[in-house]
Amino acid sequence: MKNSINFDIKTPALVEQGKRRIEWAWQEMPVLHILTKRFIHQRPLKNIRISGCLHITTETANLARTLKAAGAEIVLCASNPLSTQDDVAAALVKHYKIPVYAIRSETTEQYYQHINVALDHQPVITMDDGADLVSEIHKSRPELIPEMIGGTEETTTGVIRLRAMATEGALQFPIIAVNDAMTKHLFDNRYGTGQSTLDGIIRATNVLLAGKTFTVVGYGWCGRGIAMRAKGHGAKVVVTEVDPLKALEASMDGYQVMPLIEASKISDFIITATGDKHVVDKHHMQVMKDGCILANSGHFNVEINIPALESLSMNQHRPRPSVDEYILTDGRKLRLLAEGRLVNLAAAEGHPSAVMDMSFANQVLCAVYLANLKSKGKPKLENTVHNVPSELDREVARLKLAAMAIDIDTLTPEQQHYLSSWQEGTL
Amino acid sequence: MKNSINFDIKTPALVEQGKRRIEWAWQEMPVLHILTKRFIHQRPLKNIRISGCLHITTETANLARTLKAAGAEIVLCASNPLSTQDDVAAALVKHYKIPVYAIRSETTEQYYQHINVALDHQPVITMDDGADLVSEIHKSRPELIPEMIGGTEETTTGVIRLRAMATEGALQFPIIAVNDAMTKHLFDNRYGTGQSTLDGIIRATNVLLAGKTFTVVGYGWCGRGIAMRAKGHGAKVVVTEVDPLKALEASMDGYQVMPLIEASKISDFIITATGDKHVVDKHHMQVMKDGCILANSGHFNVEINIPALESLSMNQHRPRPSVDEYILTDGRKLRLLAEGRLVNLAAAEGHPSAVMDMSFANQVLCAVYLANLKSKGKPKLENTVHNVPSELDREVARLKLAAMAIDIDTLTPEQQHYLSSWQEGTL
Amino acid sequence: MKNSINFDIKTPALVEQGKRRIEWAWQEMPVLHILTKRFIHQRPLKNIRISGCLHITTETANLARTLKAAGAEIVLCASNPLSTQDDVAAALVKHYKIPVYAIRSETTEQYYQHINVALDHQPVITMDDGADLVSEIHKSRPELIPEMIGGTEETTTGVIRLRAMATEGALQFPIIAVNDAMTKHLFDNRYGTGQSTLDGIIRATNVLLAGKTFTVVGYGWCGRGIAMRAKGHGAKVVVTEVDPLKALEASMDGYQVMPLIEASKISDFIITATGDKHVVDKHHMQVMKDGCILANSGHFNVEINIPALESLSMNQHRPRPSVDEYILTDGRKLRLLAEGRLVNLAAAEGHPSAVMDMSFANQVLCAVYLANLKSKGKPKLENTVHNVPSELDREVARLKLAAMAIDIDTLTPEQQHYLSSWQEGTL
Amino acid sequence: MKNSINFDIKTPALVEQGKRRIEWAWQEMPVLHILTKRFIHQRPLKNIRISGCLHITTETANLARTLKAAGAEIVLCASNPLSTQDDVAAALVKHYKIPVYAIRSETTEQYYQHINVALDHQPVITMDDGADLVSEIHKSRPELIPEMIGGTEETTTGVIRLRAMATEGALQFPIIAVNDAMTKHLFDNRYGTGQSTLDGIIRATNVLLAGKTFTVVGYGWCGRGIAMRAKGHGAKVVVTEVDPLKALEASMDGYQVMPLIEASKISDFIITATGDKHVVDKHHMQVMKDGCILANSGHFNVEINIPALESLSMNQHRPRPSVDEYILTDGRKLRLLAEGRLVNLAAAEGHPSAVMDMSFANQVLCAVYLANLKSKGKPKLENTVHNVPSELDREVARLKLAAMAIDIDTLTPEQQHYLSSWQEGTL
Repeated sequence: MKNSINFDIKTPALVEQGKRRIEWAWQEMPVLHILTKRFIHQRPLKNIRISGCLHITTETANLARTLKAAGAEIVLCASNPLSTQDDVAAALVKHYKIPVYAIRSETTEQYYQHINVALDHQPVITMDDGADLVSEIHKSRPELIPEMIGGTEETTTGVIRLRAMATEGALQFPIIAVNDAMTKHLFDNRYGTGQSTLDGIIRATNVLLAGKTFTVVGYGWCGRGIAMRAKGHGAKVVVTEVDPLKALEASMDGYQVMPLIEASKISDFIITATGDKHVVDKHHMQVMKDGCILANSGHFNVEINIPALESLSMNQHRPRPSVDEYILTDGRKLRLLAEGRLVNLAAAEGHPSAVMDMSFANQVLCAVYLANLKSKGKPKLENTVHNVPSELDREVARLKLAAMAIDIDTLTPEQQHYLSSWQEGTL
Repeated sequence: MKNSINFDIKTPALVEQGKRRIEWAWQEMPVLHILTKRFIHQRPLKNIRISGCLHITTETANLARTLKAAGAEIVLCASNPLSTQDDVAAALVKHYKIPVYAIRSETTEQYYQHINVALDHQPVITMDDGADLVSEIHKSRPELIPEMIGGTEETTTGVIRLRAMATEGALQFPIIAVNDAMTKHLFDNRYGTGQSTLDGIIRATNVLLAGKTFTVVGYGWCGRGIAMRAKGHGAKVVVTEVDPLKALEASMDGYQVMPLIEASKISDFIITATGDKHVVDKHHMQVMKDGCILANSGHFNVEINIPALESLSMNQHRPRPSVDEYILTDGRKLRLLAEGRLVNLAAAEGHPSAVMDMSFANQVLCAVYLANLKSKGKPKLENTVHNVPSELDREVARLKLAAMAIDIDTLTPEQQHYLSSWQEGTL
Repeated sequence: MKNSINFDIKTPALVEQGKRRIEWAWQEMPVLHILTKRFIHQRPLKNIRISGCLHITTETANLARTLKAAGAEIVLCASNPLSTQDDVAAALVKHYKIPVYAIRSETTEQYYQHINVALDHQPVITMDDGADLVSEIHKSRPELIPEMIGGTEETTTGVIRLRAMATEGALQFPIIAVNDAMTKHLFDNRYGTGQSTLDGIIRATNVLLAGKTFTVVGYGWCGRGIAMRAKGHGAKVVVTEVDPLKALEASMDGYQVMPLIEASKISDFIITATGDKHVVDKHHMQVMKDGCILANSGHFNVEINIPALESLSMNQHRPRPSVDEYILTDGRKLRLLAEGRLVNLAAAEGHPSAVMDMSFANQVLCAVYLANLKSKGKPKLENTVHNVPSELDREVARLKLAAMAIDIDTLTPEQQHYLSSWQEGTL
Repeated sequence: MKNSINFDIKTPALVEQGKRRIEWAWQEMPVLHILTKRFIHQRPLKNIRISGCLHITTETANLARTLKAAGAEIVLCASNPLSTQDDVAAALVKHYKIPVYAIRSETTEQYYQHINVALDHQPVITMDDGADLVSEIHKSRPELIPEMIGGTEETTTGVIRLRAMATEGALQFPIIAVNDAMTKHLFDNRYGTGQSTLDGIIRATNVLLAGKTFTVVGYGWCGRGIAMRAKGHGAKVVVTEVDPLKALEASMDGYQVMPLIEASKISDFIITATGDKHVVDKHHMQVMKDGCILANSGHFNVEINIPALESLSMNQHRPRPSVDEYILTDGRKLRLLAEGRLVNLAAAEGHPSAVMDMSFANQVLCAVYLANLKSKGKPKLENTVHNVPSELDREVARLKLAAMAIDIDTLTPEQQHYLSSWQEGTL
């Protein structure tokens, strides 16, 4: 199904399934509900053109619906060729009238073509999941820069790239690091990536975790979510790190900490979550146990050195849909999940809707914040990477608790005074 | 694909996929490897006709291969219409030459017809997963009884049924309760059902568990496995019980314990694992939270009173493949997974191979044990339910540890003496 | 304070403190409350002479009060020289009028002298915590045997000794293994020993557990309680075992399993809970890390080979009250807690009252059961080791739940019927 | 034992015990070892007068030894009248020649007198554990301000007070918030307070935690450490909060979150860790369960409203050394531990040495940093609250890992480049 002007998706056949799945996710996204109700009358994004380069999933569909309800003109392309859910893409186009350019398993050429079609939309706000829109604008579409109000970035990896750009003075419009919102990184990366990474591994392999040695490479928010859930499955969890603070914390959290070269010798599973390149490299593969399962939970498929794996192998086959089994020349087998792409999206369904709810509520509130800067004639933000304004972040938390029917306490005036006072002593 | 004499399966189209999946599981079943190597020359099951009414999964395929390698003449039918993996059935027939009578989603009529075809094989040993073969023999095929050496039973539910028969004096041949082997129930039900039940729920719903209230009905081995894994996912776990000892244990394990009618009001998930009927009943449904997810992990689909659910509903639809959403007349939605059938098989892939490895090693050793009774002219067992002989059980544990490359300690003669002595005092 | 007829305790000085502590414990022992209320009028133990060789703690004091309220003539001696709480002994004598023969740190000679004074009481029921009364009767006081109705035994270690006696045909009166009651061993050993062993270790050392390697020798009920709590403190827990079933279970529970000789090289703590002798032996000590902390949680102080430790040492001193630091000839230090005696009693206060409540409720109900056999003219039990009658065990569980204000469900008649029926099939 | 010039301690009688305990702690403080070795020759604190108002514990003794080895002229007074360990005070004076002014249970008058004696030392650097030195200098000893290089603050509570002072423009010399160092608050508050608070509660009460409802008031670093360890003891943990972000996080970590007034009705334990006043107040006490145990883990004894508790009570007594049992007029009993002072210090031994090692290594490095500013003629810091310089913080982490014999990975130059580069795309 192709329409050169408005969308490029795989097939409209699954459109009803796509709609049912989007509605299912909607029920787990109560903060977006509340924001939709609030903005459908105010229309704070009226006439604002937004291009989103995001994983095309049911949750992203609900983000797009909310942005559209707030008045935005939104188009979407994929931020990863393997993460597109074709039924969702179809339903977005047909039922929600949102242009989508994304086909699961599209080629590299198609992928960048779709990014460029999304940029033809002439966005004033970008939403990225890995900085590809921003990167492409700077590299190939500099004519868009003058009109840009700003962008948002959803991932750790993207924020790292964008900060590097800002440090070099290369970044030419402001970015809000939604990834760094408390209600995003404290929840999405830890609880979302934690559950969905284990889900991806189990769907891909159906292997028992209890009693197995499970190594997590990187103890950032994603890594600690993965470690926590692997422990919750009864695995013996090993953590490897390069940062002494995180290494110490992992050790005191009860995990074994050791260099990856040592962990490689004893692991049944090795999962990467670092945002860096070739963290699982040839010399690690040379000492791995027969049957070791390798997967990546970081944004790009560069964390595991796949060319090195291929160079060590004499043969490979696919015993299950998301598993490639490499037969090494010494007879050992190493199993790579989802071609080294992020396993929670490629072998499962990505983050559960409930965590994306908070992350995407930040996206919506940040888009409105950026649009308001312009519409209210305020000065543009500096061309650097900004934090989500703290009042937005706390607003998301308050809405989420309300949706969960959890009441909390409030400080009395006396207690507030005490906290801001320094004249009461020990005795 | 139908051949009235030898097999009845859905389609041969997926035969290669079935084979790949069976081989994948084989790698996680090292104890069956060892037994295959041991018995392929001894052929202790030569000329022994075995009928297995088992879930037709990759692991069962490997059990059947091992039995066949040991000389048995084995045929298989399904023990649950929804658990049959059609690709496995096809591969068993084509690649492993094992007759299978099982089609996913077969009708009740077909289901019993297949059981009867499996009985036409004139088994001398039965292998049951819910006692349907034994039950059918006693009800409709009494002519088979005189030649029966005995049977094995894989499930708690089946053992309960068979013990009831034995107590009434109705059981006419001996059964070995493989389910009660230490290396079965301590591992299979707890670690296998635990992981795969959560896997089934997550695959069916993709809902985040962290922060949700998750009620486990029944704190037997299955229930505690489910509770342990739900806690490992960050859920707040509630346990309901009828047995004061188990209730106390659940409470001291840190779970909230309360009557189900109370739990119904606060739960996001309610999972049954009791072996009993209508444990989730109409009055519970009447007080459940909007959106509550119901699933069953017990053998039969009677634990949740589905007719009651239907009677309360004005409408129902299927938002995701394994989810039926019931719209109640008061507007609340209740979501039933996998039609109330055991969710780990119907919405996921059942127990991971690694736990089935031990359970099925017990099956093989018990079949050999029964066959040896006959071939060596020993007296038949009494017509009751027997435990797995303890030496077989420990043999399975020893083989599994060896396969996991785990060494353990051994008692010195002095230590053995100390344990069996009573003359050393406190001082 | 000595009175050759009625008691032998250290000092009456702490009598009021003893009383306050006994009353404190009483509040955590609601099942004994209920039994006291029930029996104070019925007086089922009237004229029954009971000798108890038990740890003289606040909980034992409350057991003795309950027995006395039920009419028994009870005397107590210590089952371990280091576990006696002298204030409790004083209060038992003064406030509760119960004869006690126990002095903390008494000599071996005194210890056995006290046992013999307790036997001078001419008990018809014994209560043992390590079988010393029964053992002494068989060895030195056979004249008591004809009048004995029976005894009870509280510990795993004692039950092992008594079963060995029974197997040899040496046991000359019946014993009820209170230790094996579900409401005892499922709770007392796991939750009680778990918490109090960690408590003893922390009180003795004040060392941080998070991040440390903590080895549990033996994965019985005590061992798994200790492992669970050590894990709950953030330690990396290693389990060593001689039983393949328990070793497998420990592995699947997420612990590292290895031979003790390997664990010795990496452990910061090694805790024994086996009931066996010299499980931590010279060759283990030779490879331990500098600073390793050794403690025992089993009944007797033989689990760690202390003579071997001494033979390896050139020096020793006591840096904290319950710690002996051995300086080995190679310069390493090994620290032994509580002289290898059970660390939860010697360095802390033993099991929390709440678990002893259930265990001691079994003691009371078993004493009444034994007394009733005699008073109602029923035949004596066989001279072997008996289980606690299951109706008593469940009664304790029911009373405990009631005391915790926890309601549970009950089966409907239809559900009871279903469980005992075998004619309902799969479909 | 009193010497108006040099020290004021309770008794020299326990001096040898104090020394043994200080040396025991020393073994758990390997980072201080390394710093002692490094600074004993460099003497970077030569001629620097330091006054420390700190808990007088074995760990503080080792901090003082290290500072002295680095050349400092150090005097100590207590930061809490109940936390002083008199044997340690004695040993500091006698064996380590460090002036100490601290007596356990000193009066308020003595407490402030000791603070003033410590200020008579004319410090140029202060070390506070609750901001009392800084506060007293500002209130009563302004003449000291001109010579002050700066101070350090160890607690959350103190930092809150000091930030309030800085905000008001009242702070007249710079403070480094050692409390906020990553290697302090990520470890000390969470693992140290976690373990030691539970230790204090258990030593005070010997009550079983498994199966009990345990409420933690406040989910800051201390609160989450306490919650984690209470869960690790098998308790059902409830968290109360005023901050929506922390409340959400607690919920997703699997704890029940509710207002304290609801938690009060069901809790067996309520522990405060907020840094605020009267968080457990009269209306909470009015609905608490009979027997509820109350304790505080925050710095000051104001978190539980003790006057309110007294006003509700008709009687009170002390059943165990650190427990006051209040008998309310309605007959309920509430038990307050350690008079509402921080329970981990008052009823146990405070943080284990291993966590204080990192915190105190920060203290030493910060003192050297401040001294270097002066000796190297650099400008004074601004008169506000400063973070620990990040290079010092990471140095502490590196030293600690080295001491634990844990190796970690390092980035390759290629990996470092990748992290700082933005030109590599998705494909």
